[in-house]
Amino acid sequence: MSQFDVLCIGNAIVDIIARCEDDFLVDNGIAKGAMNLIDAARAELLYSRMGPAVEASGGSAGNTAAGIASFGGSAAFFGKVSSDHLGHVYTHDIRAQGVAFDTRPLAAEPPTARSMIFVTPDGERSMNTYLGACVELGPEDVEADKAAAAKVTYFEGYLWDPPRAKEAIRRTAGIAHAAGREVSMTLSDPFCVDRYRGEFLELMRSGTVDIVFANESELKSLYQTSSFEAGLEMIRRDCKLAAVTRSELGSIAVRGAETVPVQAIEIDQLVDTTGAGDLYAAGFLYGYTSGRSLADCGALGSLAAGLVIQQIGPRPLMSLRDQARERGLI
Amino acid sequence: MSQFDVLCIGNAIVDIIARCEDDFLVDNGIAKGAMNLIDAARAELLYSRMGPAVEASGGSAGNTAAGIASFGGSAAFFGKVSSDHLGHVYTHDIRAQGVAFDTRPLAAEPPTARSMIFVTPDGERSMNTYLGACVELGPEDVEADKAAAAKVTYFEGYLWDPPRAKEAIRRTAGIAHAAGREVSMTLSDPFCVDRYRGEFLELMRSGTVDIVFANESELKSLYQTSSFEAGLEMIRRDCKLAAVTRSELGSIAVRGAETVPVQAIEIDQLVDTTGAGDLYAAGFLYGYTSGRSLADCGALGSLAAGLVIQQIGPRPLMSLRDQARERGLI
Repeated sequence: MSQFDVLCIGNAIVDIIARCEDDFLVDNGIAKGAMNLIDAARAELLYSRMGPAVEASGGSAGNTAAGIASFGGSAAFFGKVSSDHLGHVYTHDIRAQGVAFDTRPLAAEPPTARSMIFVTPDGERSMNTYLGACVELGPEDVEADKAAAAKVTYFEGYLWDPPRAKEAIRRTAGIAHAAGREVSMTLSDPFCVDRYRGEFLELMRSGTVDIVFANESELKSLYQTSSFEAGLEMIRRDCKLAAVTRSELGSIAVRGAETVPVQAIEIDQLVDTTGAGDLYAAGFLYGYTSGRSLADCGALGSLAAGLVIQQIGPRPLMSLRDQARERGLI
Repeated sequence: MSQFDVLCIGNAIVDIIARCEDDFLVDNGIAKGAMNLIDAARAELLYSRMGPAVEASGGSAGNTAAGIASFGGSAAFFGKVSSDHLGHVYTHDIRAQGVAFDTRPLAAEPPTARSMIFVTPDGERSMNTYLGACVELGPEDVEADKAAAAKVTYFEGYLWDPPRAKEAIRRTAGIAHAAGREVSMTLSDPFCVDRYRGEFLELMRSGTVDIVFANESELKSLYQTSSFEAGLEMIRRDCKLAAVTRSELGSIAVRGAETVPVQAIEIDQLVDTTGAGDLYAAGFLYGYTSGRSLADCGALGSLAAGLVIQQIGPRPLMSLRDQARERGLI
């Protein structure tokens, strides 16, 4: 059986990315910086109002899988596309990055998911996601051999939005733990945390999830606290390992009594924050599954996140392995 | 009747852009820096070998139309897409930029054209174009009102590749000239010049074309000379106005006895040369149709070209109007 460093599970989404002014978000009722779920009719409406765009494969955990592969790690992905043009593009891009992706596509409707991402002049991204085919991901899509063969299984909190993906997660986590592997999740988005706070905490406290990724606002939302420090102490108790990102302030990893602060890398020009958290997780998990210290894991995460926010689109087009080597990180 | 600054006519193409090493071009027989025409089977083969990609609307004259609109000029476009996903994307992007685009799409096959663009570490782009629906552009697609209403009609030399587009060009040029308008073309690519040298020279010498855009290698190919200066003197005699670009050396505009050298703008980081020539023409024609001096036209061309090569993709995502204003050019 082949071994994977990380198995990622997430919504398989193609991003449609355009710049806009802040007024556009207000006029169209888009929560800034958040992931807004939309239906097919609103997707059509927003697209008709959207400026010229570029398309790039995205989806949070898919971006992480691509990032791990770009570092030279071995990654697999579970996610649902349809047999349409965007599904073809999504499948090409993730496989071309070297990620094992074999989830059976839907034969027809609903179409492959897309997220219209509006990037404001400050570089912040506001996402509008039509889940499409992702609503069909279920436990029948779990490939047991991959779940057992991955050192870490990583999934996105966003998977609590489609109806049956959580069943796929629970099945995968069971297989992974039975094989002595670890399970990790990202809290994804503060509003997502708000929707599923109780379930996320249960996943952590029951030991279904060992490693948690969050940013500062997700952490605060999880514990309904305005204090970063208070949140950090609570997540320290609720999971084996947590890595919390704080944009330009860097990140902090906590494991039991250990506390490891990590700096952000210097940025020439902030272009588009899309994928920052996903790529942080990619760098961190690449480091983690290759046996590195938490400080090194964090530095690899910072590097990948810092590079992806200096370009349009959520997956770095350069080799992260080359970039990490140039900086002496691997 | 509404008036347009520029009517652009070209192959309506969606770009599929990925980075690669130089070896990849050699191994796959792709002429570096050129536009390679491919059939459907080779398109499939190259896509299967291509790395993770991003998609963006492209096509030479379409990029120019988008650039003119981004400067705040009024632009129209003729080009053929199919009624498929990529055709929908292409239509959205050019209309969202404010370009009037009403060419009737094909109902079915062949599909919308796509160009697989490989960008090497030096920033050079090598294009592999499957023309698809573009082969159906013909004289029946000429909208006479737009041809008569545009101060300049601009088309790409690439249109000599599909079978009947040249008939559309000749019809449009006739209408434009009858309305007292000017007609402009880009030589597009040195290999394209090689394929259609005699016809391009005839277009210029017969007065069908008034204004010519070329880069240095296209100019040398047109006159089969290794001397830039010799080429410049010949093109000066063969058309009313010519603008010849020389990458980092800037550009030179010649009109009768006038010779106007223009500097390139300074570049922080060369990312992807795709669209450089198209955007130079956009800036130049925006300046020209708004009554500016050749020096100012050239400066606007240099600005737009310099900006587009510092990003992935052939159409600038920022407002060229804002950029030109910031620099005091308009």
